[in-house]
Amino acid sequence: MGTDYVHGYTPAETRRLSDQARTLADLLHGGTQYEPGSKVLEAGCGVGAQTVQLVTRSPGIELTAVDIAEDSLAAAKARVAAEAPDARVEWHHGDLLNLPWPDGSFDHLFICFVLEHLPDPVQVLRTLCRLVRPGGSITVIEGDHGSAFFHPRSEAAQAVIECLNVLQAEAGGDALIGRRLQPLLTEAGIREVTARPCTVYADETLPHLVDGFTRKTFIAMVESVRGKSLATGMRTQAEWEQGIRDLERAAEPGGTFHYAFFKAVGFR
Amino acid sequence: MGTDYVHGYTPAETRRLSDQARTLADLLHGGTQYEPGSKVLEAGCGVGAQTVQLVTRSPGIELTAVDIAEDSLAAAKARVAAEAPDARVEWHHGDLLNLPWPDGSFDHLFICFVLEHLPDPVQVLRTLCRLVRPGGSITVIEGDHGSAFFHPRSEAAQAVIECLNVLQAEAGGDALIGRRLQPLLTEAGIREVTARPCTVYADETLPHLVDGFTRKTFIAMVESVRGKSLATGMRTQAEWEQGIRDLERAAEPGGTFHYAFFKAVGFR
Repeated sequence: MGTDYVHGYTPAETRRLSDQARTLADLLHGGTQYEPGSKVLEAGCGVGAQTVQLVTRSPGIELTAVDIAEDSLAAAKARVAAEAPDARVEWHHGDLLNLPWPDGSFDHLFICFVLEHLPDPVQVLRTLCRLVRPGGSITVIEGDHGSAFFHPRSEAAQAVIECLNVLQAEAGGDALIGRRLQPLLTEAGIREVTARPCTVYADETLPHLVDGFTRKTFIAMVESVRGKSLATGMRTQAEWEQGIRDLERAAEPGGTFHYAFFKAVGFR
Repeated sequence: MGTDYVHGYTPAETRRLSDQARTLADLLHGGTQYEPGSKVLEAGCGVGAQTVQLVTRSPGIELTAVDIAEDSLAAAKARVAAEAPDARVEWHHGDLLNLPWPDGSFDHLFICFVLEHLPDPVQVLRTLCRLVRPGGSITVIEGDHGSAFFHPRSEAAQAVIECLNVLQAEAGGDALIGRRLQPLLTEAGIREVTARPCTVYADETLPHLVDGFTRKTFIAMVESVRGKSLATGMRTQAEWEQGIRDLERAAEPGGTFHYAFFKAVGFR
């Protein structure tokens, strides 16, 4: 696996992921709690947005956090040191397909916003699942940009979102992976898979979600591919600005925004 | 308002609405309960699918159910007589813009799957709200066909859904109204409006939803405009069959289906 992460590795992107984690933590982590002392593998921890949630929501776990990007891993380490100094985390720089531990080394596997970037998510899931002991749990959380709809409707806004989907597909990923988590985990040999949408809906009566999600998560994520979208000629600058302006209208009074993440859980 | 109801008035359509009501009743009616003795107005009761839910979930209410279609009203009456014989329901055949009761006659107003068919939903809401006493509640439930997405993805399937959206728009309605309930009720002068999505997600681990929703509600609803879509040349017969076949794949093992209704509540 390469490191051609579609969103880039800028400070703005790091901030986006942090804002997203805070706003969405309850939505995404609800129902996920591991027993003290259990060994949990977080595959693809990025800058640690979910890592902090894991160690604070499940005190006493022995977490191993893996990422292929050294900068992200350093950021994650710093973040956990600052926000959860008592947490026991082993940090590992490496490729998810070539991890050094024997089969069955972990009680639980947690993967969030990772499979969407991989050309063969089933292969990666199969490989990672071998690291989980029989009966251990596998939790996967992903977004689905095809779930994004909003008021007022706008073709220009849809077009800038589509840039993200196309660029992610060209990089070998799938920005619309959320809807297929259940069949995907099942194909990887995971047992008793259940999947459900985790929906974010924001309007002016929910200002923390308008700001934390519509603006600082979703629009910021779309903006992260502005450079590539313009450089590759997918959109003109004027078209891009119009698309973003229209998305911002969904964050103003009278506007609404809908997005669905998907969470799937199964067992080795 | 006319009676050009986009889904038609066939027995198959009546059955579709009944199946939908049973499967979705808990999702849509959760949180909606009226105190015994309160006067509730159901505006646009259709064939009574929601009427039965209202009177069984809120025993002892005095329900007044209105519809502009006499056949639907007769079906609703028969259904309530069969399924909730003790319910106190006053049936009224009439236009929502010309109802005979004085202002403030009702404690609560309930409207489900009606505004989506109206050219001026704000005007209708304003008119109906006057019939509610100050402080009384207004509950509105609508779908949003733009929330429909599925696996495997298919442009042919999207195209048959789009036929429904276009035909509904041509009839003066809006099949994507769910996302704008909050601004719409607010514009109608309703106070303290809160809106939320009520999401249906179906995959092979949820066979009652695959059957009750994906097949018998959503695909059946799309099929209800087959005749018009072919007659107007929006799709060829082959294209239509392909679209439906692809939608049915979402109801087979390995397929998934997502749809969001929206429920908004506010006060006079």
